[in-house]
Amino acid sequence: MADEFTVTPWEVTGDIDYDLLQKKFGTTPLDDALVQRLSKYGEVHPMIRRGIFYSHRDLNVVLDQYDKGNKFILYTGRGPSGNTHLGHMMPWIFNKWVQDTFDVPMYFQMTDDEKFLFKDLTLHDTGNMAYENALDFIALGFDPEKTKIIVDTKCMHKLYPVALKVAKKITFSTAKAIFGFENSTNIGQIFFTAIQAAPAFLGTEEYGKQMPCLIPCGIDQDPHFRACRDVAPGLNYPKPATMYCKMFPGLSGADKMSSSDENATIYTTDTPKAVKKKVGRAFTGGKSTVEEQRAEGGNPEVCAVFKYNYCMFEKDDKKLEEMAQKCRNGEILCGECKMCLTEKINVFLEEHQAKREEAKDVIDSMAFDGFKW
Amino acid sequence: MADEFTVTPWEVTGDIDYDLLQKKFGTTPLDDALVQRLSKYGEVHPMIRRGIFYSHRDLNVVLDQYDKGNKFILYTGRGPSGNTHLGHMMPWIFNKWVQDTFDVPMYFQMTDDEKFLFKDLTLHDTGNMAYENALDFIALGFDPEKTKIIVDTKCMHKLYPVALKVAKKITFSTAKAIFGFENSTNIGQIFFTAIQAAPAFLGTEEYGKQMPCLIPCGIDQDPHFRACRDVAPGLNYPKPATMYCKMFPGLSGADKMSSSDENATIYTTDTPKAVKKKVGRAFTGGKSTVEEQRAEGGNPEVCAVFKYNYCMFEKDDKKLEEMAQKCRNGEILCGECKMCLTEKINVFLEEHQAKREEAKDVIDSMAFDGFKW
Repeated sequence: MADEFTVTPWEVTGDIDYDLLQKKFGTTPLDDALVQRLSKYGEVHPMIRRGIFYSHRDLNVVLDQYDKGNKFILYTGRGPSGNTHLGHMMPWIFNKWVQDTFDVPMYFQMTDDEKFLFKDLTLHDTGNMAYENALDFIALGFDPEKTKIIVDTKCMHKLYPVALKVAKKITFSTAKAIFGFENSTNIGQIFFTAIQAAPAFLGTEEYGKQMPCLIPCGIDQDPHFRACRDVAPGLNYPKPATMYCKMFPGLSGADKMSSSDENATIYTTDTPKAVKKKVGRAFTGGKSTVEEQRAEGGNPEVCAVFKYNYCMFEKDDKKLEEMAQKCRNGEILCGECKMCLTEKINVFLEEHQAKREEAKDVIDSMAFDGFKW
Repeated sequence: MADEFTVTPWEVTGDIDYDLLQKKFGTTPLDDALVQRLSKYGEVHPMIRRGIFYSHRDLNVVLDQYDKGNKFILYTGRGPSGNTHLGHMMPWIFNKWVQDTFDVPMYFQMTDDEKFLFKDLTLHDTGNMAYENALDFIALGFDPEKTKIIVDTKCMHKLYPVALKVAKKITFSTAKAIFGFENSTNIGQIFFTAIQAAPAFLGTEEYGKQMPCLIPCGIDQDPHFRACRDVAPGLNYPKPATMYCKMFPGLSGADKMSSSDENATIYTTDTPKAVKKKVGRAFTGGKSTVEEQRAEGGNPEVCAVFKYNYCMFEKDDKKLEEMAQKCRNGEILCGECKMCLTEKINVFLEEHQAKREEAKDVIDSMAFDGFKW
């Protein structure tokens, strides 16, 4: 029987069954006991409470180490293929919470090489995008003292020796089994997973001691870190732990926000007018007439506007539940919800855009090993 | 019918039929007309006259450009997996002649990454070997102003962007067809050809203009440069030209000197005593008794001692022919020939070893883009 969805680091399509995906990938549910354990370190982030970050590998192992006084290094990344949208920001916001909660150093890898290899883009394009995307990342408030940005083509002197060690341990048949490579796959694409693995081990090289690593990211990246974890023991590196989130939905109702549908995608540089227009066209769970909606209520489960509140814009669980209840009861109409969300997004973006400008003053200081942007 | 020899960048075994190899690879004979043309630039090197450098790709194209005033950049390399032996030196000596004759800049690539990926060596091992091998290269007298040494892991900031462009154009099926990769091949090995291609195009990047490139090297390296030449037009780089030599023979009579047979291999750091011992044990074309040899003569065609004179140690064609004639006529015995070759090698090595020490003073200045050894 054919799968009804596809999730790889380079393609996310279809209606994703996240429980099934977790089973296929072999990752572990982030269960109540683990959420309880996390609450010891501070208020648990809404993205955990709401099951957006829902799966992991060895999070408990990294916490055991942390409890013994061995801090981990935080690692996430971005493939700079276009402007930053809210879907990219979601896991970064979560990473910011992890850094604040555990007071840990961080690597942010920008895979300009990957996007060059997998897309119809030049290295000039992906390099420019790396700079633009990094501004959004920095604007979220990561500690400039503790956070280093890696742009692959600019940091190869440090990444390549580690990537070589990884690559020597991964055969073509293993890579093919994990990523589904074909004869038409280019040889850079085949090698690339070794580059994405490198920052997971870089802490151990840079700090000169066994440095645990925690990688919070989209679950679509698990194939990379599965390969990375498999080779770690043979290289005498700690196996990196991971935390995986679901994809941020598109305004169209699609399971993943994607730049291929610009009208259903909110970019960090969008104007208030553009946001209003895009949210105004969002797919909702409403009925076709006001009368029906008042009488029968709407369905927040399928509503993109509700999902945006759920994922990012309504942190208060009570208010969120009220919102859902009012919708189901027909007490609130889609237009009102859209207006309310537009307002929230625009407040967020106004502040973000200001911080994004300020980020230009610190971006040089956050370049890993002092590379020149 | 199975081939009786194997020649790839990583394996040379069997009795090599160099004409057949040329046909299989699709390279062009370095014919009389081209040798004649080369003689316009200066005295043709014995390795050309004697058919040791015997095959090429587009040498005429590079010479056409040269005649128009467009100098090429010279490029050859070394996989630093062990101490330098005479077999490694042979093509370098030829490259020195090319640099002197055409007054051109040069890149010397040391593939410490390749040897790490293909052999049971650490990056520490291959890095140390790169340094030791570079001393031998420099000792041959390359112009320190015009010659830059590239150690792959130390020059990735410049090589990787070019390698990415190459890699994007080479599919797995192409690489498999050229190199015979299998499922057990590691993903670093699959990518590596893009790294070896990079210096062929680096001149164009560094000089900011279309820079023709000439690569004199062993014919076992042709698969790499076939791939490299195929992608050049699509990347707007000039197709590099190549000149290929036969393998330097082992003292045992094997077609290729190899570190796997230490007693049949003369290293650049060998003592006079070691050389005497190794040459003393060499495979020759002599008869089993003095009487037989005097009566029937020997066979220089199969004699390793004669081959050493032919390839490297007797530059005078007349003297070489006399030597062969005396052997065939039984006028000279193997012991005499061995003593004579021992003397020549030791004179060469004494001078080489002194220059090798001096090389330590200039090796830093020859590091590409100022990398630290």
